[in-house]
Amino acid sequence: MRDAARASAPIGVFDSGIGGLTVLRALRRRLPAEDTVYLGDTARVPYGPKSPETVRRYAAEAAEFLLGQGIKLLVVACNTATARALPDLSESLPVPVIGVVEPGAREAARRSSSGRIGVIGTQGTVDSGAYEAAILALRPEAVVEGLACPLFVALVEEGWTEGEVARLTAERYLRPLLGRGIDTLVLGCTHYPLLRPLLQEVAGSAVTLVDSAEATADAVQRELERRGLGAPVAAGQGAARYFVTDDAGRFRRLAARWLDEEPESLETVELARTAGGPRPGASRR
Amino acid sequence: MRDAARASAPIGVFDSGIGGLTVLRALRRRLPAEDTVYLGDTARVPYGPKSPETVRRYAAEAAEFLLGQGIKLLVVACNTATARALPDLSESLPVPVIGVVEPGAREAARRSSSGRIGVIGTQGTVDSGAYEAAILALRPEAVVEGLACPLFVALVEEGWTEGEVARLTAERYLRPLLGRGIDTLVLGCTHYPLLRPLLQEVAGSAVTLVDSAEATADAVQRELERRGLGAPVAAGQGAARYFVTDDAGRFRRLAARWLDEEPESLETVELARTAGGPRPGASRR
Repeated sequence: MRDAARASAPIGVFDSGIGGLTVLRALRRRLPAEDTVYLGDTARVPYGPKSPETVRRYAAEAAEFLLGQGIKLLVVACNTATARALPDLSESLPVPVIGVVEPGAREAARRSSSGRIGVIGTQGTVDSGAYEAAILALRPEAVVEGLACPLFVALVEEGWTEGEVARLTAERYLRPLLGRGIDTLVLGCTHYPLLRPLLQEVAGSAVTLVDSAEATADAVQRELERRGLGAPVAAGQGAARYFVTDDAGRFRRLAARWLDEEPESLETVELARTAGGPRPGASRR
Repeated sequence: MRDAARASAPIGVFDSGIGGLTVLRALRRRLPAEDTVYLGDTARVPYGPKSPETVRRYAAEAAEFLLGQGIKLLVVACNTATARALPDLSESLPVPVIGVVEPGAREAARRSSSGRIGVIGTQGTVDSGAYEAAILALRPEAVVEGLACPLFVALVEEGWTEGEVARLTAERYLRPLLGRGIDTLVLGCTHYPLLRPLLQEVAGSAVTLVDSAEATADAVQRELERRGLGAPVAAGQGAARYFVTDDAGRFRRLAARWLDEEPESLETVELARTAGGPRPGASRR
């Protein structure tokens, strides 16, 4: 593909379900001229409790689908998939791949004063140790405290992002982390930005919250600039297409709430099961 | 298969994940001589938010796997799968099939005085209207109030079945139902029996709780007696085998807590994708 054509190609964003919409939203606000293609693997959500091998296989299938849509860059907007599959994808795909872990880790490492950093996410993300590894690579003296908060996803999807239940849940999860003296807290799950006001209130103003969605949008912007792949500004407002693997109705309802607009182009697709692992699309272009 | 051999065959129990363990537990307590084979489709849990077609396909694949284990009866210990797939399975399988909806509905219809019956479950179960249809078939004058309580599953899996968060969540969900004057409440999700003490407390002693797991174990016992298919009592304590489609470690931890014993025989399997729908195993025996 020639450079001008590549610059006009869409950015691919993939998540296990709807969580990645917080990343998409941050991306579209920051880079309004870019076309985007979002894939939510809603037939197989959530990835959090699934095994590393399964998550790698699902991520490879999703990447293959988005490559078929002609994307110029892939955002893995799912913490679990980033933690489990990013090295495989980066190695095998013919386009740049950006995950949500490294940008959030970099921001946390930069902003923490004490070096005591909390990371909250799904069980899969926390068990993977991906944030801890990424933070320690940048600040070897840091102390990283990980904690799985599975109820947060259910609260966000139920729309209970404020009120007593959400507050007590946040207090119960965060109290032990805060007791260990963290000064920075990474929202290591794409659902969590919707709880941000509440989490900031519970954590207190002395704790800096790092929103992985915003940090990832930053990283995408820098990568496109570095490679000269940004969309021509004259193109106007970029188009947004959405694909899900199941239950488009539920996705549409939640997306409308999260994005403050109805997805215009939304299709249900079935992902091909690729034989033998992590090299999807390698023979496609 | 001859009758004596069939009577010694195991009962198959299938759920999208771990929820069906409450049904298995009720079954093993009531029929201790029976061998059981449990299949938790943990790679694709939860079924609740998935489309009817997808749930039917998954259920067909699970049934095919359990038929391959030589079962004499299939329990669909998943409300969503029962609501979506029971008619197809009953029609196509060569063994009796019992779901969790009809037994719970029958018990509720029998025990309610006022005929005002609440049903709580996942979004999929409630949207299906399966409990309402089953209750109205037995008591046409009944008024059924359905309500999806998605946070309950997350609470149970987190082990937060008592305490302030669980209580406030239960109050918030149940208040509108109780306000409509129900005298009976069906726990229409296999996770919910673990919240039963709390739900009884919140609902008050004037409301009868119907536990689908117990009602289903009753129905299985009656069906085996009716067909002369009960295991020979001399067989002693029946064996329990477990299969999951992903992440056996997590299943083992949760099962140990729910069953008060570690699963002894636990294997991870991959379910075959059957082409063309709801007639799995039809050619197998």
